Amino acid sequence: MRILVLGGDGYLGWPTAMYLSARGHDVAVLDNFSKRHWELEFNAQPLIPISTLKDRVRVWKEVTKRHISCLTGDLCDYGFVRAALRRVGPEAIVHFGEQPSAPYSMIDQRRCVLTQVNNVTGTLNILWAMQEFVPAAHLVKLGSMGEYGTPNIDIEEGFFEIEHHGRKGVFPFPKQPLSFYHLSKVHDSSNIMFACGAWKLRSTDLHQGIVYGVATDETELNSRLATSFHYDAVFGTSLNRFCVQAVAGLPLTLYGTGGQRRPFLNIRDTLRCVELAILNPPKAGEYRVFNQFTETFSISELAETVRRQAEKLGYSVTIEHLPNPRVEEEEHHYCPRHQKLLDLGLKPQLLSEVLLDSVLVTIRSQAHRIRRESILPSIQWDGACGAAGSADRRVTRRSWRSPSGGMPREASHRQSCYHRL
Amino acid sequence: MRILVLGGDGYLGWPTAMYLSARGHDVAVLDNFSKRHWELEFNAQPLIPISTLKDRVRVWKEVTKRHISCLTGDLCDYGFVRAALRRVGPEAIVHFGEQPSAPYSMIDQRRCVLTQVNNVTGTLNILWAMQEFVPAAHLVKLGSMGEYGTPNIDIEEGFFEIEHHGRKGVFPFPKQPLSFYHLSKVHDSSNIMFACGAWKLRSTDLHQGIVYGVATDETELNSRLATSFHYDAVFGTSLNRFCVQAVAGLPLTLYGTGGQRRPFLNIRDTLRCVELAILNPPKAGEYRVFNQFTETFSISELAETVRRQAEKLGYSVTIEHLPNPRVEEEEHHYCPRHQKLLDLGLKPQLLSEVLLDSVLVTIRSQAHRIRRESILPSIQWDGACGAAGSADRRVTRRSWRSPSGGMPREASHRQSCYHRL
Repeated sequence: MRILVLGGDGYLGWPTAMYLSARGHDVAVLDNFSKRHWELEFNAQPLIPISTLKDRVRVWKEVTKRHISCLTGDLCDYGFVRAALRRVGPEAIVHFGEQPSAPYSMIDQRRCVLTQVNNVTGTLNILWAMQEFVPAAHLVKLGSMGEYGTPNIDIEEGFFEIEHHGRKGVFPFPKQPLSFYHLSKVHDSSNIMFACGAWKLRSTDLHQGIVYGVATDETELNSRLATSFHYDAVFGTSLNRFCVQAVAGLPLTLYGTGGQRRPFLNIRDTLRCVELAILNPPKAGEYRVFNQFTETFSISELAETVRRQAEKLGYSVTIEHLPNPRVEEEEHHYCPRHQKLLDLGLKPQLLSEVLLDSVLVTIRSQAHRIRRESILPSIQWDGACGAAGSADRRVTRRSWRSPSGGMPREASHRQSCYHRL
Repeated sequence: MRILVLGGDGYLGWPTAMYLSARGHDVAVLDNFSKRHWELEFNAQPLIPISTLKDRVRVWKEVTKRHISCLTGDLCDYGFVRAALRRVGPEAIVHFGEQPSAPYSMIDQRRCVLTQVNNVTGTLNILWAMQEFVPAAHLVKLGSMGEYGTPNIDIEEGFFEIEHHGRKGVFPFPKQPLSFYHLSKVHDSSNIMFACGAWKLRSTDLHQGIVYGVATDETELNSRLATSFHYDAVFGTSLNRFCVQAVAGLPLTLYGTGGQRRPFLNIRDTLRCVELAILNPPKAGEYRVFNQFTETFSISELAETVRRQAEKLGYSVTIEHLPNPRVEEEEHHYCPRHQKLLDLGLKPQLLSEVLLDSVLVTIRSQAHRIRRESILPSIQWDGACGAAGSADRRVTRRSWRSPSGGMPREASHRQSCYHRL
């Protein structure tokens, strides 16, 4: 199948491209390297040195004799998007090509607007170009489980039936996301659903959990095929960060109580889920949502798991509770469904000690590259530290009330800003 | 009260500014005149000649001795927005400052992206600047009843309780809008709700129906205080367009069966609703939705009402059904609540024969200015005619299935494009 992977230089985009290429698909990757550019703003570098995209494509060819095409350009440039879709003529488009960080989107007005304009415009451009050139193609869009927030009812996969005053209908599950980044994904989902209805496009919106892990069968073929592994406060995710903290002899830092429950999946399962979506496309006009994760953990359970495993490897690990920089419930109901990908054949690779062990060992081999100063949170959700640098900014303490009627929580005891952005 | 009216040059913004000024508030208007610019793309001009904003502000001062300040700039320019909020220090911000046309947003990729980027960025900028300079101010945002679409259950005012698998929560009412413009309003609503929660801002989101009418107490003080009245296919609304068609001796044109049911309100009620929201602000951190309309009609009922009244004035009126250029249900359940503004004291001015009479008489006085060629629809929702001018564009017929599980409707019998955009 001809498959175009948008954001093919990223943590998940590049392993996905190799995975699909290894399985005989005709793969093209597209990126504009924005993510590498944004990393420089924070002096955040992936833990494992990674080659340029073109070098990785070349190594992939050397190692496997398989060709991956490479397109360089910006999804916000409609002329480029049209030309790319016309040239590649994809049957499936896997869309990882967005600003991927929630903390980044909360820093200040500029990053907030950049995140939403970049993500929404890119996705709109893809929809318009699909309608024009490849209306039968299947858009596999990476959304986020964070679109749902943490509602007080069980989370369904995208849609559910509502009965109200004796009448019924099937409705999109209500979204209550907790950052401007997650809001950008919600906006995308709404736009894609509309375009599928109005233009008979087809799309699978993968509401993905938090991905962990660093290696896939393909990255292990050659060190120059490695993917970016982030542990910093801006682009890193919790489990990856905890593993780095354990190896670096730093306390594992929980935000608040650590009672926040979140969905997780192994990077290898991400690739398989994308493949399953591609191999089982929706029909023309259909917009569907898969909740893409395999397990849920509270953040403190996760830290305990990392501590146990790291201690077996001889590390001495402590756990520290930081004042929560985010505005979120710390104790809440959380019961999201995740059946559709299992029904298509997903065999989850759960968070086993074996896997964590391999992540920790990989990190140990790169321990000299850990930048300790980039790990602790510096971005405040409540606006207290967001626009550091604008001297006249009000630094205020505010409290949070969930729009879903959750309990008020005083956003007190904020830590000071760890470093200026 | 110090009130800043964004989009103060528009159909509703200008009458709102005068209305609030007349009631003793300290009013500033802000606009960048984008709307007048967009009108030129379609050779669409308001029926009644309107003065420039600065001239209208000057006439207002002459007639009433009241001062309205005038700020010129773009809400997408954050430096300007910060300076404006710092300078005015508003207690309430009334936000009409968006691209207001659904058909415009459906024309092509450029207008679609312009609509969403313009509207979303402007609103985000206001939220960030509020948080920075006037966190206690009340944002009165003009949303749209079109955000809800036409669901098969009764529409509540913004939020409702959902019980699901034995658990309950209060949730945002699910939105299924029917154009990229209405989607931009949905995105705004989501962003504002989040900002109220995270930053303790306060906002009223007025989900407004279709406004009709041309005169208010203030516009009637002097002909140079008139507001823009659109009847064209891009910026006009149905009832205003029907009145113009009746006076011009043109058939009243329904899209499809005309069974589409929509919410309506008088322009005078818009002003009163905005005032009621301002006088009864939400508390800090609260995001609330008012459904702002007074009656619902099917489009064919509306046409019949105009026909009856126009015939009394001696016009001979026919009604014609055009193939529907939009992708929408033509026969559907429609039962939206609209209680909250009534509870605050709104006394609706319903669509009486007296009012229609005065609209028709006003139009008659300007009959020589009617541009007949701008009335018929030229923008196809299903992509068939959107990007006229791009020679390689696929012109296809597609069918529509409501994401809410409504019945399929073949989007056949599309009319040809009336004019090239």
